[in-house]
Amino acid sequence: MTPHTDDQPTADRSPAKSLPGRPCSIAAALHVLGEKWALLAVRELFYGNHRFDRIVRNTGAPRDRLTARLRALEEAGVIERRAYSERPPRYEYHLTEAGRDLVPLIQSLLAWGDRWLSPEPPVVLRHHPDHSDHPDHPLDAAWTCRTCGAEVRGPDIGIEIRSPGWDHQGPTSHLPTAGSS
Amino acid sequence: MTPHTDDQPTADRSPAKSLPGRPCSIAAALHVLGEKWALLAVRELFYGNHRFDRIVRNTGAPRDRLTARLRALEEAGVIERRAYSERPPRYEYHLTEAGRDLVPLIQSLLAWGDRWLSPEPPVVLRHHPDHSDHPDHPLDAAWTCRTCGAEVRGPDIGIEIRSPGWDHQGPTSHLPTAGSS
Repeated sequence: MTPHTDDQPTADRSPAKSLPGRPCSIAAALHVLGEKWALLAVRELFYGNHRFDRIVRNTGAPRDRLTARLRALEEAGVIERRAYSERPPRYEYHLTEAGRDLVPLIQSLLAWGDRWLSPEPPVVLRHHPDHSDHPDHPLDAAWTCRTCGAEVRGPDIGIEIRSPGWDHQGPTSHLPTAGSS
Repeated sequence: MTPHTDDQPTADRSPAKSLPGRPCSIAAALHVLGEKWALLAVRELFYGNHRFDRIVRNTGAPRDRLTARLRALEEAGVIERRAYSERPPRYEYHLTEAGRDLVPLIQSLLAWGDRWLSPEPPVVLRHHPDHSDHPDHPLDAAWTCRTCGAEVRGPDIGIEIRSPGWDHQGPTSHLPTAGSS
């Protein structure tokens, strides 16, 4: 899985065009990341726990569901398997570059859960940038806009739909689409 | 649903303590936000589409699944129903403050999907901050640390576990926990 640049077109297996509803990278991302066990497995890999039994224990995921999720994440290029034993064959799971790029999403989930659901955050993220005069410190993350430098807040965001046949409200053609009623 | 401050303790219905696996705000958030239909409904509310039939059409969600998701989001305080017709009774759905606070998470999903799955982003976010000399412009979001001002990258992040009985690797007591094998 490689990021999209002009030099690196999307793999044909990109799900973005075959999903129901509005053409949308959010939908494409959620199609790959699926339900909670997938993202909790990514959490454990980010925490440094790479073996199946440990991921099961630390997430509480049913073993069969976790097996299916890990396989889907591997097929999507978010994680990769590495053998650590030949007899019997045993594997560890590691985040690929696409998987490591999920850390901001994990942090967004963590920040929202801390704010709205957890009176005492069970985990605090620490920030230790290589090139900074600041030593290791608690991460106090915000989204900022590189263009204007301002911190991004929900009400400041608008959308521009670029998918042909769709606008903010939905399909402009008023023809039936998958999932319409 | 109110954010947690020292003055506003968590509602008792907080799921954070009753979930399997590691105590975790990510797990708590995913428990509320569930699978993709919930977050895609939040997307449509953020886009300004507040009625059930339009959310069905634009997400492609099965009607019964969407009904269940909207009810769960309402119970969790992420969305609220507002009557727009008395006879017959008809409702619109709107994001609460907790729901609007999901916009950075939606943006994280969008950015990841754009980068790894969509060769031509079907939606571009626009930024129009109130207090800026910059007029409306495409959002170029960067994840930054308020403490040190640096842009945050995945490898710069560490974790500090604050939940008693757990460390990075898992439960320190080695007693069985829910979901362990």
